Amino acid sequence: MARLKAPQRKEQLLGVATRVFAKYGYDATTTASIASAAGVTEPILYRHFGSKQELFVAIARAVSARTLRHWKELISDIDDPAEQLREIAGQFDDHLHELGDAYRVIHSALTTTRDRKVLNVLREHYRQIEAFFRAIVVSGQKKGVFRSVEVKTVCWHLINTGLGYAVVTQNLAPFETFDAKSAIEFVIRGLKA
Amino acid sequence: MARLKAPQRKEQLLGVATRVFAKYGYDATTTASIASAAGVTEPILYRHFGSKQELFVAIARAVSARTLRHWKELISDIDDPAEQLREIAGQFDDHLHELGDAYRVIHSALTTTRDRKVLNVLREHYRQIEAFFRAIVVSGQKKGVFRSVEVKTVCWHLINTGLGYAVVTQNLAPFETFDAKSAIEFVIRGLKA
Repeated sequence: MARLKAPQRKEQLLGVATRVFAKYGYDATTTASIASAAGVTEPILYRHFGSKQELFVAIARAVSARTLRHWKELISDIDDPAEQLREIAGQFDDHLHELGDAYRVIHSALTTTRDRKVLNVLREHYRQIEAFFRAIVVSGQKKGVFRSVEVKTVCWHLINTGLGYAVVTQNLAPFETFDAKSAIEFVIRGLKA
Repeated sequence: MARLKAPQRKEQLLGVATRVFAKYGYDATTTASIASAAGVTEPILYRHFGSKQELFVAIARAVSARTLRHWKELISDIDDPAEQLREIAGQFDDHLHELGDAYRVIHSALTTTRDRKVLNVLREHYRQIEAFFRAIVVSGQKKGVFRSVEVKTVCWHLINTGLGYAVVTQNLAPFETFDAKSAIEFVIRGLKA
């Protein structure tokens, strides 16, 4: 294989690690299998990522960052907080498709691993998603379009909707499940002042 | 180890398998490790369960059955559908504690495995939970206390709330998350006619 420059090699290793973790789960994957799937030796892998944990941390942080960047872009031209939530829900299938393997890795690690560093980065991920939704809900409350419900409860309704939708559509398909847009309409109706 | 009669041995093997699956995940567990943890040989294990899949199917069906029996008992003396949902939410922590390992096994298999028989029994599990909630929501609509929202959307809000609550409290604790009762209050307010 042609020799890649460091940033490209790092990117390639992350992509390969995401696919291998998604296929076998975080716990069952070894750095040896990632190196082999990437066509490099383990010492080369270790030059870029010190451990399996570090690979996971990089994948999870990239998912958090890409998700938040994507959502912020989606809502940047929208004033109405309810419309912001609708826009995110409307694009959720595409987002999930684009980050499919990375979300599989996150959800499989969430339900399976006991690795403390991995669990810490997952806590970080959910805190960031919660903070993003919190800003939308609080802004709606300040504008008087949302009623004064406990914000954490609403944020987690949104997170749970995304989590449930992702794990069910990714893993149980074909399976008749709910539609993400209707789910968000239900939350918005519950929020309306 | 004293020789157990067939039904007791079967029960013991299921308990051990649940613990081992919960600890290592469905995919990473072998029948050899379950037999060894149970203090029996693999041929003895196979006398009761033909395969690892059969053990999983028995565990998942037991979770579905115990959950539905428990919830039906909880609501049997309650007429108001909103109160029925409140009662289930109020007891959810205890229920999760009691079936903790079994729910870990289900959620870890849901996000990780590609085994078709395992995925089929998971579909069965969620269809049963959905049907249980459907009966409550439709009864509330018939009584005129719930508005006419799409029933599937509401059922899955309830399922996703339980799923999200379970995976976050079981795996990310200590972690400041939502409270199951407030989450159900939010759904009930969204449902109120």
